[in-house]
Amino acid sequence: MSEERELHAALAANAAFYTAFAAGDLRAMHTIWSVSEPVLCSHPGTLPLHGRTSVMESWQAILVQPPPIAVSEARGVAIRGVAFVTCLEHIGGEILAATNVFVWEEGQWRMAHHQSGAIPRQKPTGPEPEQPLH
Amino acid sequence: MSEERELHAALAANAAFYTAFAAGDLRAMHTIWSVSEPVLCSHPGTLPLHGRTSVMESWQAILVQPPPIAVSEARGVAIRGVAFVTCLEHIGGEILAATNVFVWEEGQWRMAHHQSGAIPRQKPTGPEPEQPLH
Repeated sequence: MSEERELHAALAANAAFYTAFAAGDLRAMHTIWSVSEPVLCSHPGTLPLHGRTSVMESWQAILVQPPPIAVSEARGVAIRGVAFVTCLEHIGGEILAATNVFVWEEGQWRMAHHQSGAIPRQKPTGPEPEQPLH
Repeated sequence: MSEERELHAALAANAAFYTAFAAGDLRAMHTIWSVSEPVLCSHPGTLPLHGRTSVMESWQAILVQPPPIAVSEARGVAIRGVAFVTCLEHIGGEILAATNVFVWEEGQWRMAHHQSGAIPRQKPTGPEPEQPLH
């Protein structure tokens, strides 16, 4: 498969992840995540989770009542059977930056890592530092 | 190189990234980032940056006065010449979750992607939503 087609397929896998997310489709989420590689997941503002069991337990809890999530500006890179995609998540007026990593497994891209973090819409005015952390 | 040695080398590259970061060493940062692959970077609370020029400009600005950054709990996966590492960043009492992706390039791991996002220590008490975004 050409690099362009690989990337196109990875972006489709990224879209499928958000479709399952928005629909609360835990069964789809189980097939979206890699079964052959160690997986990692950092939900917004939480410690990273390691391993398929912990990661799928987190999705089981989240997908009981999934947030109304939409995605935009997905862009990615596919290299040597691994693809990483960045995109923006839109949840109820909030915007989050996400990184999603996929591995080529049994003829499809499967998710090996997800990190999402909020992008504040305005400077914090409370006790938080006014400067970005980096 | 065995998978174990690959991962060990990727974790060393991750440590070298934070050494350069803490030291404000822009020259080292230039050699740490990939030159052969498209690179992506999401600094905390900001839109993702795409491409080496934008990413290196961001580091040039940050490294003029680097924050006192330390790193812990680095764990990763190396697959087919691509490695992704999660770790915690510690900056002045704040904790951030980070994802760093490395590609094997000219005999060394070079960074292709960095995302870092704050982990709040307590529930927000202002106008922010009290529930996690996901």
